[in-house]
Amino acid sequence: MDFKFLQNLIVPAQTKIAMIIMDGLGGLPLEPGGKTELETAHTPNLDALAAQSALGLTVPVGPGITPGSGPGHLGIFGYDPLQYEIGRGVLEALGVDFDLGPHDVAARGNFCSVDAAGLLTDRRAGRIPTDVNEELAKLLRTIKIDGVEFFVETVKEHRFAFVMRGSGLGDALTETDPWKTGVPALPVHALKPDSEKAARLVNQFIEQARKLLADKHPANMILLRGFARYPTMPTYPELFGLRAAAIAVSGMYRGVAKLVGMKALKVDGERIADEFTTLEQNWNDFDFFYLHVKKTDTAGEDGDFPRKVRVIEEVDALMPRLMALKPDVVIVSGDHSSPALLKSHSWHPVPTLLYSRYVRADGIAEFGERACARGSLGILPAKDVMPIALANAQRIAKFGA
Amino acid sequence: MDFKFLQNLIVPAQTKIAMIIMDGLGGLPLEPGGKTELETAHTPNLDALAAQSALGLTVPVGPGITPGSGPGHLGIFGYDPLQYEIGRGVLEALGVDFDLGPHDVAARGNFCSVDAAGLLTDRRAGRIPTDVNEELAKLLRTIKIDGVEFFVETVKEHRFAFVMRGSGLGDALTETDPWKTGVPALPVHALKPDSEKAARLVNQFIEQARKLLADKHPANMILLRGFARYPTMPTYPELFGLRAAAIAVSGMYRGVAKLVGMKALKVDGERIADEFTTLEQNWNDFDFFYLHVKKTDTAGEDGDFPRKVRVIEEVDALMPRLMALKPDVVIVSGDHSSPALLKSHSWHPVPTLLYSRYVRADGIAEFGERACARGSLGILPAKDVMPIALANAQRIAKFGA
Repeated sequence: MDFKFLQNLIVPAQTKIAMIIMDGLGGLPLEPGGKTELETAHTPNLDALAAQSALGLTVPVGPGITPGSGPGHLGIFGYDPLQYEIGRGVLEALGVDFDLGPHDVAARGNFCSVDAAGLLTDRRAGRIPTDVNEELAKLLRTIKIDGVEFFVETVKEHRFAFVMRGSGLGDALTETDPWKTGVPALPVHALKPDSEKAARLVNQFIEQARKLLADKHPANMILLRGFARYPTMPTYPELFGLRAAAIAVSGMYRGVAKLVGMKALKVDGERIADEFTTLEQNWNDFDFFYLHVKKTDTAGEDGDFPRKVRVIEEVDALMPRLMALKPDVVIVSGDHSSPALLKSHSWHPVPTLLYSRYVRADGIAEFGERACARGSLGILPAKDVMPIALANAQRIAKFGA
Repeated sequence: MDFKFLQNLIVPAQTKIAMIIMDGLGGLPLEPGGKTELETAHTPNLDALAAQSALGLTVPVGPGITPGSGPGHLGIFGYDPLQYEIGRGVLEALGVDFDLGPHDVAARGNFCSVDAAGLLTDRRAGRIPTDVNEELAKLLRTIKIDGVEFFVETVKEHRFAFVMRGSGLGDALTETDPWKTGVPALPVHALKPDSEKAARLVNQFIEQARKLLADKHPANMILLRGFARYPTMPTYPELFGLRAAAIAVSGMYRGVAKLVGMKALKVDGERIADEFTTLEQNWNDFDFFYLHVKKTDTAGEDGDFPRKVRVIEEVDALMPRLMALKPDVVIVSGDHSSPALLKSHSWHPVPTLLYSRYVRADGIAEFGERACARGSLGILPAKDVMPIALANAQRIAKFGA
């Protein structure tokens, strides 16, 4: 079922869809036979909603595949993450809230250490403090080359986002990182003729950077990789006829949402409750809301099981504020799993709840991994959730007579 | 898994498969937490059969997609409805039991009203009574053009089926319906060179129809759309080696069955029991029987929950007559869902039961949506049911050594 097929069936409706994404929601028990983070959390509101919902487990990319945040989000947004790839450079730029243009070429940058012969001694420049990075970024911004504009944005420690803006810049570029020490950084090569201009300009930039950083050991050189432009992808308004809004605190998630044509709303404050306030304030102006909760993932990656439980409980306590808005369709899910046991993203399917008046409810009054495994959505590709949500929002017309 | 792969594994057997399709079988509870039509119905025979069966929920076309009857049937018949599309004109002709030939071009026709300047004033001619339509159809049948034969068959009110028979007639034709009033009907254009002859002939037919109908206001003009020939599709005998029979009262379902190479059997009477009588009378002569029950869908579309329940109970009461024939494989399913709550077809997966001596029975003694959601067939594309049924009928050989 391709997008063109779906797009041709889309009809307008006055319904509203809310998608609550708890990043890295899926978990694992700390001890065999125990409960996951979500199963441990006291979630009376989500459990009550589950009873009126269809439950299932979503597979973000494919069996056994652990997704990064980009592919994880594309999946739950309804895109096949294997078809639409977001380059590393684009993610890095989005991550610092950089307003990336459609023709900009972005890359992930590292400050690194080289010896007198120019051979790499540390690919991460001893993880310099972020404030040192900020000073060096200012220095790199003094580099000027005719006909092109460069941006250097500090991420943290040795990492920065590099963006090149100009006309006729391709992104088929090799990386400069040799992924080992004792050798020099590599020059950039164009892999396609349309990227030769970009390759030349990047190499000129690196040459100037080398001179500017010469006395800045340990950060006396840079590495660039993951050169990429925006992927060309159909957007929510085009595909689904949805006026879509994104509510997220971190730049990367706002960025991925913007990629698919959502408007990233301003959130006053950093608390999850502040995101729900933004949801309430903008409820009348959009058809679709994506609300992103970052802290579940952070707790999972930190291996902090109790903290992940508490974040889930915090979201549960806010659910009545969403339900008071009387959404037609509610999706509660994650972009991937991040079990505290693994301290990282994982491949495990993600507990998913789909509520609407027209859903065939499973009558399972519990939102958890094992409850979802018994649900009537089954184990489904994450990208299939959006068409089902759109159907429940009565936004898909009948196919064939 | 494509047809060619499957076809190469097919082996003959002396087994019989019966597929009972209750149109629009899947439903929804009227009130949250309540029971669906099928769950409400008292179905001791289906429940007993379910206990010896594998259960599942079939997805006719794709997630969130509400199928029309054509795609819904192709799915449960084992075809991918996205690969094989049945044109509107073909459905209209099949619907009136017209014996459409493989090279005939069919269209849906409307009588319509035009003013003195030829501009449309009513695209449906005020929904003229069916008997008026029948008189006008006779008039249109007097149109003769060399080298081609025309058929005009009343459907009801302003609707008729139009068929053109001759050599070298393509179906890549634009429609004449402008879908609005105040403008003239459009001429037909060929979208491909192979359809130019057909376009010329249709335009000549319309010109003569305009003259014949000039004083027949409100039905003083016609509109034609959905030009289509039979889709070219492999048939049951070719694909599966099955001598297949269709038992259906309505023309459209007989037609779709004929498309896939089933023989449409004569049914004496309009009752569901009459269809079971036809089944019994022809049991020895075929390997596969498709028996279609229309009234579940009609009740669903009418929003009549209790009537849909009663139709299901009527089918249940007839099941012993099927089982007395000792079928090797029984499929009980629907072509799509038609919940009374929605008064229309819907996207919800369809409860499906597969019985055979060799099925791995779930031991769930209940045939209903939530029971099927727990079944071992899982949530599966409708097109996957036929290969599993064929395997249970021992009609698929081992693949590989």
